[in-house]
Amino acid sequence: MSTSRPKNIVIAGGVAGGMSCATRLRRLDEHANITVIEKGPYISYANCGIPYALGGVIESDVKLHVTNPQKIESWFNVNVRTNTELVSIDRAAKTVSVRHWQSPGGPGDGESQVSTLPYDNLILALGAEPLMPPIEGVHSSHVFNLITIPDLQHIQQYIRTTKAHTAVVIGGAFIGLEAAENLQFLGLDVTVVEHSAHIFPIADADMVRPLEDELVRYKVKLLTSTSVTKITPPTSDLPGMLYLTNHDPLQADIVIVAAGIRSRTSIPAAAGLAVGKTGVSVNEFMQTSDPCIYAVGDMVETYHRVLGQNVRLALAGPANRQGRLAADHIAGRKTVYRGNIGTAICKVFGQTIGIVGLSRKQLDTIPGLKHEFVTVHPPNHAGYYPGSQKLVVRVHFDRDTGHLLGGQVTGPDGADKQTDVLAVAITAGMSVEDLEHLELAYAPPFGSAKDPINMVGFVAGNVMRGDVEVAHPADFATGRQMLGDYLVLDVRSVGEFEAGHVAGAVNIPLGELRDRLSELDKSRKILSYCMVGYRGYVACRILKQEGFEVTNLDGGYRAVKMGGYSDDLQVVPLRQ
Amino acid sequence: MSTSRPKNIVIAGGVAGGMSCATRLRRLDEHANITVIEKGPYISYANCGIPYALGGVIESDVKLHVTNPQKIESWFNVNVRTNTELVSIDRAAKTVSVRHWQSPGGPGDGESQVSTLPYDNLILALGAEPLMPPIEGVHSSHVFNLITIPDLQHIQQYIRTTKAHTAVVIGGAFIGLEAAENLQFLGLDVTVVEHSAHIFPIADADMVRPLEDELVRYKVKLLTSTSVTKITPPTSDLPGMLYLTNHDPLQADIVIVAAGIRSRTSIPAAAGLAVGKTGVSVNEFMQTSDPCIYAVGDMVETYHRVLGQNVRLALAGPANRQGRLAADHIAGRKTVYRGNIGTAICKVFGQTIGIVGLSRKQLDTIPGLKHEFVTVHPPNHAGYYPGSQKLVVRVHFDRDTGHLLGGQVTGPDGADKQTDVLAVAITAGMSVEDLEHLELAYAPPFGSAKDPINMVGFVAGNVMRGDVEVAHPADFATGRQMLGDYLVLDVRSVGEFEAGHVAGAVNIPLGELRDRLSELDKSRKILSYCMVGYRGYVACRILKQEGFEVTNLDGGYRAVKMGGYSDDLQVVPLRQ
Repeated sequence: MSTSRPKNIVIAGGVAGGMSCATRLRRLDEHANITVIEKGPYISYANCGIPYALGGVIESDVKLHVTNPQKIESWFNVNVRTNTELVSIDRAAKTVSVRHWQSPGGPGDGESQVSTLPYDNLILALGAEPLMPPIEGVHSSHVFNLITIPDLQHIQQYIRTTKAHTAVVIGGAFIGLEAAENLQFLGLDVTVVEHSAHIFPIADADMVRPLEDELVRYKVKLLTSTSVTKITPPTSDLPGMLYLTNHDPLQADIVIVAAGIRSRTSIPAAAGLAVGKTGVSVNEFMQTSDPCIYAVGDMVETYHRVLGQNVRLALAGPANRQGRLAADHIAGRKTVYRGNIGTAICKVFGQTIGIVGLSRKQLDTIPGLKHEFVTVHPPNHAGYYPGSQKLVVRVHFDRDTGHLLGGQVTGPDGADKQTDVLAVAITAGMSVEDLEHLELAYAPPFGSAKDPINMVGFVAGNVMRGDVEVAHPADFATGRQMLGDYLVLDVRSVGEFEAGHVAGAVNIPLGELRDRLSELDKSRKILSYCMVGYRGYVACRILKQEGFEVTNLDGGYRAVKMGGYSDDLQVVPLRQ
Repeated sequence: MSTSRPKNIVIAGGVAGGMSCATRLRRLDEHANITVIEKGPYISYANCGIPYALGGVIESDVKLHVTNPQKIESWFNVNVRTNTELVSIDRAAKTVSVRHWQSPGGPGDGESQVSTLPYDNLILALGAEPLMPPIEGVHSSHVFNLITIPDLQHIQQYIRTTKAHTAVVIGGAFIGLEAAENLQFLGLDVTVVEHSAHIFPIADADMVRPLEDELVRYKVKLLTSTSVTKITPPTSDLPGMLYLTNHDPLQADIVIVAAGIRSRTSIPAAAGLAVGKTGVSVNEFMQTSDPCIYAVGDMVETYHRVLGQNVRLALAGPANRQGRLAADHIAGRKTVYRGNIGTAICKVFGQTIGIVGLSRKQLDTIPGLKHEFVTVHPPNHAGYYPGSQKLVVRVHFDRDTGHLLGGQVTGPDGADKQTDVLAVAITAGMSVEDLEHLELAYAPPFGSAKDPINMVGFVAGNVMRGDVEVAHPADFATGRQMLGDYLVLDVRSVGEFEAGHVAGAVNIPLGELRDRLSELDKSRKILSYCMVGYRGYVACRILKQEGFEVTNLDGGYRAVKMGGYSDDLQVVPLRQ
């Protein structure tokens, strides 16, 4: 039954998810009354660009404005109210109470009026708020977040007026590292403090080590496994200080807190909408527990296809798609949200990490799952073509079925391509053997005849088929494996061996191995390795067929060095 | 029943497919007797790099040698015989006759001995030979191919000794255009002659137009729809000349023929092996009609998954995989070759085209198939981050099911990534609606919140769902559609309109459309357009809901200009 009265649609939140919903809905329903309220002074801006506007990489925050209320009203006949925040929802009356702030500075600044808007459908796109750790001094005036354009403007003004020289960034994940990079570009002396043992805790430790080394190379100090206990603001006499567990205090003229975010659930919770552990609960059409109310973006939790659980995912792409889907459903179309795979990417100076699916640590939390991973070091394009640079590509997979569970790609150039290929492969439910067969674009400037993704597929496929066993440098560092249990065999050339090798290794170059088998003790397990893993694997095949018990060191000696391990496969602290 | 005698394996051809087969087989069978014969002086070199070695982009052809016989013998215990060609196969006796040339120059140069090798399995990896069009003078000493390292060396020597200044390349596809680019780098005055109406005949005409424009920009002359009728060599008095249909003769000190290739089928055909239209016939394990004999690489025809037919595919990636699969099968493993999707990529100076699946013209040849395509112009990464450049992304899809049938990506940077994503999507059997849901890596330096692939999915999905109809500039140029049948509506701003517009268009900016509907004649079909297609689409949605019959011009006015069409949507000849 359709009603002839146009629907009243209220969308609370005018950035990614909310604005995608508004414009999509207008395209599907020319006659609905669509109102967007936005707490802040701007709509539809590119939050992800904010750190880069801080560092001047993006010249001006003007460039971040994707659109403006005038354009949205003109093109889409959508009523846009900025400086207007959602106060409460009356589900029985189907109204929302909203507060409009007079001053252009928005909430907390000037007079306001409260009004009531009726809705047939309400879309909540309230986003997330920065998580402020309960640290003494965290609310001082020299402590900032870097989420919104006003945040950006406040930081810029603070640095300009105080001539701040030392900065501490709390949090070593996406926004924290982008902030650190851009503060360094501004000439500040920057320290990143991360409570986990490594930056990007959602990635494997050794995969992010090249990014940690890159920070150090750019004179950004990195303190891991440490927490902030107290922050004191600068005074006319004394500099601001930041106190840490396990570490001397740091001077900090300015502090950026990038310690994670929290879904904005208080208004929906007060209205009695179901809220999960990490965000507002929604069904596959983005409906909350009240079918007239939808929620999208950073404030909701959605199904993680690899983890098999609902989680919050604060990413712009999914937020946009969710807004679109909510509009579809309101317009009578049942487009299903398919869940997330956690694709993410971050640049830190000249290094990048791309992540999709789950890390080893995350996979370890899934009961009963047998998982394995392999690591390769392919060039981003044909090694003989100028400008070729090595990537590190890792895939995690189900040891029983071969299905892809995660991928991580680190490198100076081209990590985004391999990450996207792995994202599509995981979405399609591909196995590592499927990766072997992919027909990817090759010409010398762009790829290799054996593409990095084919390569990692071959290596993982060899494990799946039982042709080779692998052990990882991290296994030895964490005590899962003991180096002393193995006869360590370095099959590189004498020159390579002499330039550095795993502690206790014997050196038999691959070309001599067949003739020198008698030098190896058949009663011992052998750990074979070379520089990147290929010769080590060929040696494994020879030895296995000759009756030896043999394991290949995943990623070879390069993985040892790149992952930050010593020659006895223990973690080397960053030298900074 | 296994025999205790090691198998005799003979592999004829020591480049991509043959060498992959040899090394894979050794890893699976430590005791087989593996012999590789290679007609030329080198094994395992990177043919794809040869054009770049000509232009000095790759400094030396030494860089193209992936490996050498000594390393293969040492690491893999494989007997490698260079300068040794296959002469014939005696299938009854299971022997091959081979001819070894004494001189390092290889066949045709010096003495030779014929010998016989027994085989349990024979792998043919003979490759393809350049197609020499039956033109008078095509065998002159100033006419070359550019396939092998000796070809490269001969061309380099010829240019050096004759100081050749004018070059004509016959053939405007991959090798031809890479050759043209690199001859231009050497300072030669280069003309490309292509018998089709446009370069890369396997792509859509308008998608390759940016590459044609790029050739002109780099002073490479391009003659299409013309054929060579006669070639005369330079003499002491007269320059070399090249005579053409529909065109004045060209001066040509040197001619490169890159007019396609032909599978080397004469020896397998003489041995009674089944040969298809385009190459040797093989099953899914790469076995020929004789189960003891395998064939791989450029000489075979394999199943094209989109075309649904067997075709020859001369690409390095598939050749390597096929060699690997043949080794698997010989070692008792039944790994199935999954067919091809035709992924290819080529750089022409600063422009690139990536291709996967089929073009419009190729799809038109499939009986009963209803297909459609859409074109978008997304930035390669967030437009507000420095260095962003526009791509053109097109997908062809099944109009009934939405399944992807092809993709083409043109642009100065990043086309390889989008091509690979589309390659995986086609391999996975995805539909355009699946593209909408992909979760691809986004941070400002790498992508967009609405990724190019999501965007093209949205646009195609809108067509699939019946939300919008599209017409293409090419439809008008080819007479499939008549501009006069439409009321042409330009919904851009007045300023954009005045800077250039489709002939006869009326201008109503999108923001004014709702108020000016009465200006439009409801009895007429409307062709709506803007700059790239989005505002045109929004206008279509407004008009459709208001009862108008309306079609969007795919890709907008930018597609008109980029595709090489005039304002009345006819093809504009290249200005050179």
